[in-house]
Amino acid sequence: MDILVVGSVAFDSVETPFGRAEDVLGGSATYFSASASYFAKVNLVAVVGEDFSEEHIRVFNEKDIDIKGLKRVNGRTFRWKGRYDYDLNQAHTIDTQLNVFSNFDPVLPEEYRDIPYVFLANIDPELQLKVLEQVRKPMFVACDTMNFWIEGKYDALRELLRYVDLFVINESEAREFAREPSLVKAARFILDCGPGILIIKRGEYGALMFNGRSVFSAPAYPLEDIYDPTGAGDSFAGGLMGYIAYTGDVGEENLRKAIIFGSVMASFNVESFSLDRLRNLTMNDIHTRYREFKRLTHFEDI
Amino acid sequence: MDILVVGSVAFDSVETPFGRAEDVLGGSATYFSASASYFAKVNLVAVVGEDFSEEHIRVFNEKDIDIKGLKRVNGRTFRWKGRYDYDLNQAHTIDTQLNVFSNFDPVLPEEYRDIPYVFLANIDPELQLKVLEQVRKPMFVACDTMNFWIEGKYDALRELLRYVDLFVINESEAREFAREPSLVKAARFILDCGPGILIIKRGEYGALMFNGRSVFSAPAYPLEDIYDPTGAGDSFAGGLMGYIAYTGDVGEENLRKAIIFGSVMASFNVESFSLDRLRNLTMNDIHTRYREFKRLTHFEDI
Repeated sequence: MDILVVGSVAFDSVETPFGRAEDVLGGSATYFSASASYFAKVNLVAVVGEDFSEEHIRVFNEKDIDIKGLKRVNGRTFRWKGRYDYDLNQAHTIDTQLNVFSNFDPVLPEEYRDIPYVFLANIDPELQLKVLEQVRKPMFVACDTMNFWIEGKYDALRELLRYVDLFVINESEAREFAREPSLVKAARFILDCGPGILIIKRGEYGALMFNGRSVFSAPAYPLEDIYDPTGAGDSFAGGLMGYIAYTGDVGEENLRKAIIFGSVMASFNVESFSLDRLRNLTMNDIHTRYREFKRLTHFEDI
Repeated sequence: MDILVVGSVAFDSVETPFGRAEDVLGGSATYFSASASYFAKVNLVAVVGEDFSEEHIRVFNEKDIDIKGLKRVNGRTFRWKGRYDYDLNQAHTIDTQLNVFSNFDPVLPEEYRDIPYVFLANIDPELQLKVLEQVRKPMFVACDTMNFWIEGKYDALRELLRYVDLFVINESEAREFAREPSLVKAARFILDCGPGILIIKRGEYGALMFNGRSVFSAPAYPLEDIYDPTGAGDSFAGGLMGYIAYTGDVGEENLRKAIIFGSVMASFNVESFSLDRLRNLTMNDIHTRYREFKRLTHFEDI
């Protein structure tokens, strides 16, 4: 079934110990869409400027990504410039130019309002709430956020959490949001805010899923070199939501599989700059790596 | 089969966000022995001072731990004082008094020299080498170390690694030893130094095992509160070596199980100060938690 994603489309300039890229296609909604499109049709709502070319449009068109909701307005596309040192879990922002994104006011095309699977990528929680007002009866809503909104829009975020089924957040942000150093206690606090499911992303350490009854610990794939971690969290969410939408099953066992598919997509994404790797995968690549995750974590019963 | 452990027996004073303990029994060989003794007979080589009382001896005697190799000499027992803040992965040393440990010269009782399983806990690598000269034909030798020796006795450590089957080390120390930020590359470098198996401990993120052919990722148990992380690494090594010695099987599948048993023991250990929890476990507690680890990581095949 279809997925709706609302988030950013951007041009990124990124420096890592392994190289650099200038003004390459990025943004949360972009990474999410490219990743999720291997599993389900994605419908994208975002805004770009006049500098967004046919070549960039092609990245969406070559996949099962509907861009009726991609608005093109006067001005320049959102730009982010950042650097990663050897600690690839930590992005250092050099420059942010919101440009057309500063007036982003997501309006869903009429035919998007009945899409059953909704992912609200990391944008202002007030806008995330506004999107939710426009969808009719979503089957499953997930959202992401970041420290900037936890610090600046805490109340809106708390309000948003009342309406989402799944909250995806970084480890340090989970602690910050809950004001609680124990991750297990922070998770309980967040679940009490509304979402039935919480996924805590831990970068190169994998992810944890909490649902109030059990915990699932997913590893990260031990890569020799992480070329560019940009978009790892969004491609994780893309694989996760993609597999949920594809199967239509939000039971715990299926969510565990979905998390592994998310981890698979994130592991491919960081192997190259921008969407270079995500654009050129086969389902065989994806399934092979899924099986590698299985082998990576396998141990026998006693 | 029997295990030989050589390391420290100490009195620790520890402060954590959850409380404090003064002059309580600690030390790498102590934590290791208490943990391993649930699986196999342990033979301990260490040194203590005159302040080491009958009450402390009882901790060993109540378990299957032979202390013929525990030498009592004039002076005070090794003392460590440390603090943990909310980042419980990071110990802050307040004071170290080597006392009798500064002249520690491990001499194995004759009957220890044929023990098949050997664990060289974190001490001067020159002393670790000296122990190896005294054992006759060990079936399996494992060792630990720390940044202090990597920085001060790098060559001796390199020499030691030629003779060990299994090297257990912290994540940051693995990177430091190999002078390589990529953990996968650091692991390859370390394996090239000699050990057939490398286990990298990642604290609350679990552990990774490398053997040159495959990688195994073990999770940590998501505890609500970690009361005192002191001894986590040594109780991990104790469960690991204990299970290996109990089964006599160093095949990869069994090593994976051994790592989970190590993780189980470490998870119990950090639930209390000193050895309070490690002293009072049942095999049923241990097996129950092993099965919880299984459930924690389980996901279905595709």
